Amino acid sequence: MVLLSGGLDSATAAAIAGSQGFELYALTVEYGQRHACEIAAARAIARALGVARHVELRVDLSAFGGSALTDAVEVPKDRDLAAADIPVTYVPARNTVFLSLAMAWAESLGARDIVIGVNALDYSGYPDCRPEFIEAFDRLAALATKAGVEGAPLRVHAPLISLTKAEIIRRGLELGVDYGLTHSCYDPDITGRPCGRCDSCRLRARGFAEAGVPDPALLRLRPAIVVLGD
Amino acid sequence: MVLLSGGLDSATAAAIAGSQGFELYALTVEYGQRHACEIAAARAIARALGVARHVELRVDLSAFGGSALTDAVEVPKDRDLAAADIPVTYVPARNTVFLSLAMAWAESLGARDIVIGVNALDYSGYPDCRPEFIEAFDRLAALATKAGVEGAPLRVHAPLISLTKAEIIRRGLELGVDYGLTHSCYDPDITGRPCGRCDSCRLRARGFAEAGVPDPALLRLRPAIVVLGD
Repeated sequence: MVLLSGGLDSATAAAIAGSQGFELYALTVEYGQRHACEIAAARAIARALGVARHVELRVDLSAFGGSALTDAVEVPKDRDLAAADIPVTYVPARNTVFLSLAMAWAESLGARDIVIGVNALDYSGYPDCRPEFIEAFDRLAALATKAGVEGAPLRVHAPLISLTKAEIIRRGLELGVDYGLTHSCYDPDITGRPCGRCDSCRLRARGFAEAGVPDPALLRLRPAIVVLGD
Repeated sequence: MVLLSGGLDSATAAAIAGSQGFELYALTVEYGQRHACEIAAARAIARALGVARHVELRVDLSAFGGSALTDAVEVPKDRDLAAADIPVTYVPARNTVFLSLAMAWAESLGARDIVIGVNALDYSGYPDCRPEFIEAFDRLAALATKAGVEGAPLRVHAPLISLTKAEIIRRGLELGVDYGLTHSCYDPDITGRPCGRCDSCRLRARGFAEAGVPDPALLRLRPAIVVLGD
């Protein structure tokens, strides 16, 4: 059971699980994010990975508000990536909601393993990307489910947790991940073109630079408006 | 932040929180349950409790299947309530999903306390009604949120956890809860009339019998079909 956001990290985490012989079931949560082209990216990645089933579930977290990713709040640009504060792009309890939904589907399927692509190094300081959060959810999963009571608890795996963005990209390229299908930007324009200046764009660009490879997603860039003369 | 299902337990838990001076925000999750009259009950209870805001959020857990409450599977009748097995009415990971959504809204609001009406005595053996589950979620909540990182963690409260159904009913009646508004049956007919034979109906009936009071919800019972002669 892989959580697939449409981004670079979850595509890599899913590819790692696939390379280890697991049959993949992919869950994408449509949570009212502003950058809805994430969903289209998740669909393309699921197809490329050959998942057994891909579920897109709508859970409108924007009903609660509280984040620049779901509300009409400006996404910060050119922010200091080393700053200690938690930015406004943080979506309250997002990974807890995602993992609990993955747990619900995993238990229904009889799946025993949940894979999430969080990483604790090149991220934006979100509390629910830290190893101690993943460990606490893993303990919860053992108690929360029928499978756990019956002695075969669900486990949560975060194979990228201690990798840098560059290491993630190198690992994914070895496994044949097509990063041209992935979308990372928090604030794309109407054509899906990344802004290049939000945290997510900049962490991605730094990762590709450090890995020493070009970002294939940038190759599909084109002018947003073409004015045709007569 | 109270999780309000429309049932007897959550109405009582909410009334307890209200009686202690908390401003109430009520969350009802429409998860694809077969007994949709629960939602109407939750709405009536929220109104009676005078909550500051009531959100009904749709999260279609029936997309995952795996429960008699969301699928076309027979709800068991006249089951041995003391049986050790987990019945087919168990909805995989339901309380984890509910608590994570409550956590998302609570954090957005700046609320610090989540109230859930689970109880570990008169229940159906669901793993996510046990005290150890609630404790694990409480630990998770402290790690998962921005509030937790900033030193003011969200807490999860289960004020009914060690009460019998009869004790819950007595406590609720002291607080003026109108149990006539609550709905418990897993398999009501099209008019909302309880079946009287599922686990939930029988635990409720036993509770009212032990408390020595009539169930006001039964007073609104009427024949489902009236055939008018000429």
